[in-house]
Amino acid sequence: MLVIAGLGLYGFRDVSYGLMEWIRKADVIFLEQYTSILPGFDVKEFSKWIGKRVVLTTRKDIEEMNGGGILHEAKKGIVVFLTIGNPFYATTHVALVLRAAQMGIDYLVIPSVSVFDGIICSLGLQMYKFGKTATLTFPSEEYGFYPHSTYFTVLDNLRKGLHTLLLLDLKVEENVFMTVDKAVDVMLLLERLNNKNVFDEETLMIGVARATALDEKVYIGKIGDAREVDLGPPPHSIVIPGILHDVEIEYLSARFGVDKKVLEEWSNRVKTEYLDTQNT
Amino acid sequence: MLVIAGLGLYGFRDVSYGLMEWIRKADVIFLEQYTSILPGFDVKEFSKWIGKRVVLTTRKDIEEMNGGGILHEAKKGIVVFLTIGNPFYATTHVALVLRAAQMGIDYLVIPSVSVFDGIICSLGLQMYKFGKTATLTFPSEEYGFYPHSTYFTVLDNLRKGLHTLLLLDLKVEENVFMTVDKAVDVMLLLERLNNKNVFDEETLMIGVARATALDEKVYIGKIGDAREVDLGPPPHSIVIPGILHDVEIEYLSARFGVDKKVLEEWSNRVKTEYLDTQNT
Repeated sequence: MLVIAGLGLYGFRDVSYGLMEWIRKADVIFLEQYTSILPGFDVKEFSKWIGKRVVLTTRKDIEEMNGGGILHEAKKGIVVFLTIGNPFYATTHVALVLRAAQMGIDYLVIPSVSVFDGIICSLGLQMYKFGKTATLTFPSEEYGFYPHSTYFTVLDNLRKGLHTLLLLDLKVEENVFMTVDKAVDVMLLLERLNNKNVFDEETLMIGVARATALDEKVYIGKIGDAREVDLGPPPHSIVIPGILHDVEIEYLSARFGVDKKVLEEWSNRVKTEYLDTQNT
Repeated sequence: MLVIAGLGLYGFRDVSYGLMEWIRKADVIFLEQYTSILPGFDVKEFSKWIGKRVVLTTRKDIEEMNGGGILHEAKKGIVVFLTIGNPFYATTHVALVLRAAQMGIDYLVIPSVSVFDGIICSLGLQMYKFGKTATLTFPSEEYGFYPHSTYFTVLDNLRKGLHTLLLLDLKVEENVFMTVDKAVDVMLLLERLNNKNVFDEETLMIGVARATALDEKVYIGKIGDAREVDLGPPPHSIVIPGILHDVEIEYLSARFGVDKKVLEEWSNRVKTEYLDTQNT
């Protein structure tokens, strides 16, 4: 049997009693740490806490080997496969469970808090004011790859007055992480290439590092000023706000001490400059 | 101090160790059960499990009394305010914490799994293929209220090929819940009033009852056939799929035994009938 579950967003805090029941019953426990970063988490301490050995898996194990090692064990006994955040935010995890299903292996997906939950809890933004989420990946000039679709996702959302959550690229195994300050250059590069007036130095952005962690850090301000911002270790995310609701403005102001005028001015800019007022 | 946290989606399963630490330290524990439904959860058993009394709050306590009772206690000691799912999916909870901030009361938001996490884990759909989420509320012919914006949200999402999560209305205190079978009439009523060809009897929908619970039930099929479907007690949600990725089709087929052709045909219909192919 394959049980796939998330450890949440920070340390051992989000580990649930339901997950712990399965950890107790497990014959083998796997953990993958290449799709995301779990601040405040230490595998050795975790292993000690649960009183069981934890086997680390790599991208190669899951993608190139098709999770063969995991599925082999899941045929014989109870396997708990631990991930970070919501276990199904990574397509590769859905594909793994699909292979289990096709091999006739029983499976169970235990939900866990996602980065989206963390951002909502950190910022007090309303979930139904978010449009499509996108990932801002590192461009590769060598291969001629640029994350243009992410640029157009932000534009689409702004036209509807919606917020965009931008997940920032990470290559955990190479120890390479996109941070809020570095994302500025990627955003402005996309602007130069597409020229649709989505990002400029004045665009309002919210940068969040280690959402909901004890050492969470948040930057709210212009993209142009974010180059100088150091929010510390990953993971980082960005929200490009759309039209902000009064409660959202009040909350961001009360929590982060940001001037309400900055938020109101941006909200007005979205209304006048981006909002698609054509009747649908 | 005010600690606001979610209990998750099912029974005690999603209660986290981090939350339990605060429950142990709490002077008073409040629980609100009017913004959502937590299947498999019993307050008395929960109270016994944690070894503390749990005070139930009502919509009136939070909205009309501005959470006065809760904030009064949070001024004196540690208050844990429990909700269902992600604590900030309800605007009323953000407003409560905002009032705490304005009164100079310390606060902490502990994330918890949201209904979106549950739907992702149940269906294996990819989170970045979802557009804006909307709530399908009960229309009120008496007051001339119809959830038109929800209709246009689905249309916007279909034009981008995106999935829409529709949360279904619930009036817990009146014991009134919109179920998947009843939602059909609301969707087709909205179609008659707006006439933009968003919903018809052939539209593909996924109805999910009690996502991730042990007795979870899923319906995948035409809207027209959903009238005859009984998925049992609330909460129910609906997904109107956009263009489905191959892994999504394979997963839905493997997990729920639905014919791949049904999913592929719908995907093609979205592509040909709705997709906005105009360059953005």
